Amino acid sequence: MTTDAGSIVLGVGDADALFGEDAGAGSAEPLQIVDPHEAVVSPFDFAVTRGDGMFEATVVWDGYAVSLENHLKRLAHTAAMIDMPAPNLPAFERAVEQLVDEYADPERGPIMRILVSRGPDRATGIGAAAPDQPHVWMFLDAKAALHTDAPITMTTLSRGYTSDVAERAPWLLCGAKTLSYAVNQSAHRECARRGVDDSVFVTDDGYVLECPNATIVARYGDEFVTPDPSIGILHGTTQRELFAWARQEGKSFSYARRMPVERLREADALYMTHGGWVIPVRSLDGRDYAVDQVQADSINAAIHAGRTRADALGIGPDNA
Amino acid sequence: MTTDAGSIVLGVGDADALFGEDAGAGSAEPLQIVDPHEAVVSPFDFAVTRGDGMFEATVVWDGYAVSLENHLKRLAHTAAMIDMPAPNLPAFERAVEQLVDEYADPERGPIMRILVSRGPDRATGIGAAAPDQPHVWMFLDAKAALHTDAPITMTTLSRGYTSDVAERAPWLLCGAKTLSYAVNQSAHRECARRGVDDSVFVTDDGYVLECPNATIVARYGDEFVTPDPSIGILHGTTQRELFAWARQEGKSFSYARRMPVERLREADALYMTHGGWVIPVRSLDGRDYAVDQVQADSINAAIHAGRTRADALGIGPDNA
Repeated sequence: MTTDAGSIVLGVGDADALFGEDAGAGSAEPLQIVDPHEAVVSPFDFAVTRGDGMFEATVVWDGYAVSLENHLKRLAHTAAMIDMPAPNLPAFERAVEQLVDEYADPERGPIMRILVSRGPDRATGIGAAAPDQPHVWMFLDAKAALHTDAPITMTTLSRGYTSDVAERAPWLLCGAKTLSYAVNQSAHRECARRGVDDSVFVTDDGYVLECPNATIVARYGDEFVTPDPSIGILHGTTQRELFAWARQEGKSFSYARRMPVERLREADALYMTHGGWVIPVRSLDGRDYAVDQVQADSINAAIHAGRTRADALGIGPDNA
Repeated sequence: MTTDAGSIVLGVGDADALFGEDAGAGSAEPLQIVDPHEAVVSPFDFAVTRGDGMFEATVVWDGYAVSLENHLKRLAHTAAMIDMPAPNLPAFERAVEQLVDEYADPERGPIMRILVSRGPDRATGIGAAAPDQPHVWMFLDAKAALHTDAPITMTTLSRGYTSDVAERAPWLLCGAKTLSYAVNQSAHRECARRGVDDSVFVTDDGYVLECPNATIVARYGDEFVTPDPSIGILHGTTQRELFAWARQEGKSFSYARRMPVERLREADALYMTHGGWVIPVRSLDGRDYAVDQVQADSINAAIHAGRTRADALGIGPDNA
């Protein structure tokens, strides 16, 4: 082990446990904890050769993995969309416990990432001879670029699609959280060129989608609104925690079947939500928005304390 | 080393040599040859976390890397598009020689892949502490799924974009060969569902793009036609070898500024070109095409023998 031991905890998954049907009784622990400096990935892995796999990420606050159940449900949703085996969710929960058990750093909110590749690239000689099962790497990282709730500036960016793309071309994987994030990374570089912090993807016919690695939520008076995931975006995990907070505070929320970009710009306030953090937006496309830092702090504190957890599990477009 | 030694040759790149400005004199060899079963990639690498990097692939026939110069030029083009450092092309050529020198398998046409990641993921603790430079893995693989010139069946598939997307939204990286190929892999699964071998992506306004990992070429009489890369697709390396063959045989070729899907369907013959192979298409969207296997074999033989190499270097949309 190295000086990072306890601050960066890396686990390599046992595919039989994490993707088997009856993981649990008598089986091995789902993760093997290894030195985070160890190279544990083959260059013949589908993650490397094709960006072919899926992932989730969240803050683990004082040992509590925020929105874990919803992250794992979304992982299962992505698995179904990309024709991968279904993850064994209790085994993944146990794997998260293993990471948390090994964690020993003063940082209260390290980030956790779950990376799952389709496995060995079957088109390579090494991959064709290896067991055809997913590969899993999970880590808890106190030294990562951690989120904060400092207000951000944003721009809209075209995603190049129209709003019906998810229905008519499901092979484009809109709404799947795959490891192929080159375009999302590119969008962040475009933001840097424009001198803003982040972006909101929009369709060519003028509707709001999502951010490159976050969800956008607008507030109008006491109502919080986000685009319905059926447009071909991820269902935000932190956004659901925010909606749960709204319900607890006697405010309302809704999923907009289609949200015109102009409607987003007319909001009283905007939040970008991801990884267990609700982040105030102070400008979008050059228009300024009021920032209620007290409200943001209050929401994040509720989320991190687990106060919104149970309610968030029941929130979705069908009951908004 | 293992029983795969000589059949699967894996090299790990030296970033200083492969991305330095004056690689060569006195510097170390660009590749370190390692056991192909060795896990040499960190899970904190951008290739794994984000599919953030670039690649090229080609057949190496009897030790001759087909279209190597055009592959390396295209690698440099992708690097520029995704804001990565420029590769040192002579160093990459030397790296290919190293792979070929180590190769010892009866298979005459192993596949070579060049994988380049952006490097350590700077948003992770491990990545932030590592040198901020690209990572390179290259391999020559006799046991991979090798291409053949057996005729294939195809379907068109929407890419979800209109034909002006590359101009108006360059951050979508249309025309860059990144490691984020989840959608390309998904297109192949959609083909399997439809019972065909491969697909041609088309725009929503009805123009031909490219195949998920290949180029499409139509033949009308003695003229070969492919879409102009300016529409936001890769400039085919094997397609240029095919055009060079056509020139040598007294036939003509052209790049279509925009090629309507209907025009593609009206072709006398269709070829899918990639990785040093020209592959006859025997049906597209249920319409049958004549297959001239003698012509296909003749073209592939010329390409593999290096007969088209020099001419292919000068071919592009500007001189078609």
